[in-house]
Amino acid sequence: MTGAVDEERAARAYLLRVAEPPAPSLGRFVEENGPIQAAALVRAGRCPARVREETAARKDQALAEHDLAEASRLGARLVIPEDDEWPAWPLLALELASARGLTGVAPPLGLWVRGDERLDEAADKAVSIVGARAATSYGEHVASEFAYELAGRGVPIFSGAAYGIDGAAHRGALAADGTTVAVLGCGLDVGYPAGHVALLERIAERGLVLTEYPPGTPPARHRFLVRNRLIAALAEGTVVVEAGARSGARNTAGTAGALGKVVMAVPGPIGSATSVGCHQLIRDASATLVASVGDVVETIGRFGSDAGDAGPPRPRRPTDGLAKDALRVHEALGLRKGKSAEQIATESGIEVAKVRATLPALEIDELAERCETGWRRRREAR
Amino acid sequence: MTGAVDEERAARAYLLRVAEPPAPSLGRFVEENGPIQAAALVRAGRCPARVREETAARKDQALAEHDLAEASRLGARLVIPEDDEWPAWPLLALELASARGLTGVAPPLGLWVRGDERLDEAADKAVSIVGARAATSYGEHVASEFAYELAGRGVPIFSGAAYGIDGAAHRGALAADGTTVAVLGCGLDVGYPAGHVALLERIAERGLVLTEYPPGTPPARHRFLVRNRLIAALAEGTVVVEAGARSGARNTAGTAGALGKVVMAVPGPIGSATSVGCHQLIRDASATLVASVGDVVETIGRFGSDAGDAGPPRPRRPTDGLAKDALRVHEALGLRKGKSAEQIATESGIEVAKVRATLPALEIDELAERCETGWRRRREAR
Repeated sequence: MTGAVDEERAARAYLLRVAEPPAPSLGRFVEENGPIQAAALVRAGRCPARVREETAARKDQALAEHDLAEASRLGARLVIPEDDEWPAWPLLALELASARGLTGVAPPLGLWVRGDERLDEAADKAVSIVGARAATSYGEHVASEFAYELAGRGVPIFSGAAYGIDGAAHRGALAADGTTVAVLGCGLDVGYPAGHVALLERIAERGLVLTEYPPGTPPARHRFLVRNRLIAALAEGTVVVEAGARSGARNTAGTAGALGKVVMAVPGPIGSATSVGCHQLIRDASATLVASVGDVVETIGRFGSDAGDAGPPRPRRPTDGLAKDALRVHEALGLRKGKSAEQIATESGIEVAKVRATLPALEIDELAERCETGWRRRREAR
Repeated sequence: MTGAVDEERAARAYLLRVAEPPAPSLGRFVEENGPIQAAALVRAGRCPARVREETAARKDQALAEHDLAEASRLGARLVIPEDDEWPAWPLLALELASARGLTGVAPPLGLWVRGDERLDEAADKAVSIVGARAATSYGEHVASEFAYELAGRGVPIFSGAAYGIDGAAHRGALAADGTTVAVLGCGLDVGYPAGHVALLERIAERGLVLTEYPPGTPPARHRFLVRNRLIAALAEGTVVVEAGARSGARNTAGTAGALGKVVMAVPGPIGSATSVGCHQLIRDASATLVASVGDVVETIGRFGSDAGDAGPPRPRRPTDGLAKDALRVHEALGLRKGKSAEQIATESGIEVAKVRATLPALEIDELAERCETGWRRRREAR
């Protein structure tokens, strides 16, 4: 860690404590001013009204050092957008959806993470498995089997840490010696739910436990709902294994759909109350029916080649490690027809001067190339 | 019965015996020449080569009188297109699909029917319930429950007469004192399957048992497949309750889809081999998931109001009883914009002179009206 990043990390630790996520106005304020300046302005109360609203109640809780020390004591770290391992690509979906006006999906300002895996690698082509706490043995069996088979093929599994489907999914992935990630709605040190403390230890050893909530934050119903956007965003697709008519899992599925992710649901016997939500999702075409891991792999499509081969770790995506603006510029490039810098600026929402500065850097990284009509994406050489 | 219809009935009884259904060329030949003339020509071998191919092997089996007497002995009748109770509207789907070039779906030349219900009334807004012979108790329970509830709401049930789902569906409908119709792949007197002879008796008492095969025709695999088009066509929608990866029920579902009928499938536990076919139908969007009778009613849509009310018999459709050509002319009319007789002729495939003769008759029946730009459908007054 460089000193500069440490300052940014401390600033983001402060900001994560003062606003209850998701805090869209604070997020935009940090984008515009950078985290260090934004933190100073928030603390001084010198920020726009909407940002003040999000931060006024806790702006004097200057606990960054304490929180970072506490994380360190827990064997955890704060991963921030300035870090290489920040999962910029998957989280871009949150930023774009938030920019489109979807509420409650602003990206996190940072993530408290426990475990040795790199977060960006764990969030590369992952699958979320979610479902009811009051699951049936059928549901737990399916969650565990799906997670076991997917993790065995090298697909990282994301879930919450609840009883029922979540726990079964993590256990399945662990049994396959695969990567599994638990996303919490409370601080890393809170040990919730109590019956899963040992499971969370094992997950941290083999994969990751993460949260945007600072150490000591107690769990709360709204925090689980807010947390669900991370489970939806950090995976390529979400599988709902069992869900009642109204359930958190349906909320995650709805968010995943709104983010443009693949949403899948497992059917069950029609008399089962915990399959009602799955059947509704399939019936109203919000989710694709999956009856096997083969169906999941086929549905996600891009997994076609990769997920079939277990064995050596998959190559990183060429765009991994790109700054968020560079990603957006890259995203705006066409595959065949070239575009002008002005066009790219309009489509990406990045100002044209920055687009002009970014394109040659993408060219050096072999991610963009010039052609007769402008700039286009360079096909991946893989 | 008039003498004229009796002659047509005898002609069709002869034709049903000499050609193995579906016999598309014979069907067209009968359309063109009328049944009496067609029968005479077939018997004399004076028909086009394609018709001869369909009829050569059995054209000397002149068993019409015998078959009609045998039917009478069984308490059955031969219903023909010239009869008022012929279900012209539902069977139009077969004619149109056949005209479009779909093979194996030519309409029947007549139907041997046992039971007191009118066939056209039984086939009015009916639901087919189909599925595996080797059903699970889950599947049989669902079939029986769905049939019970639908029949209790006045919706007639159609199915085969096989063990498993078919039998469960009929039993459910009978328990609700509703109308249920068994469509056979053999003669009415064959008593197949043996274990369902008593059930078929009860169905004939409360609803209908029908087949296009003359008395004495033994069951055969291809006859069940050919029979499936009738189950698909005579109902508004088909519900597949349980089906293996390859099954007759999927065949019925495929035909129903090709006929433009509503196809529905019931999900089940993903480990169950008899739900594999249902899950595939839902997954590839060939069928809509239905997890309750409410879902079935909602999916069929038009049932929205009618199926909700049990009680008095539903009013007949205004177009019931129209001759087939008149139905096709009516079908070709637009709801808002008027069309010329020439346009209607082109769209309906009925010659323009006949269209011109038919339109005033439809006007008298309050089914068509003149407007500035020609003829249009008159909104139903119901």
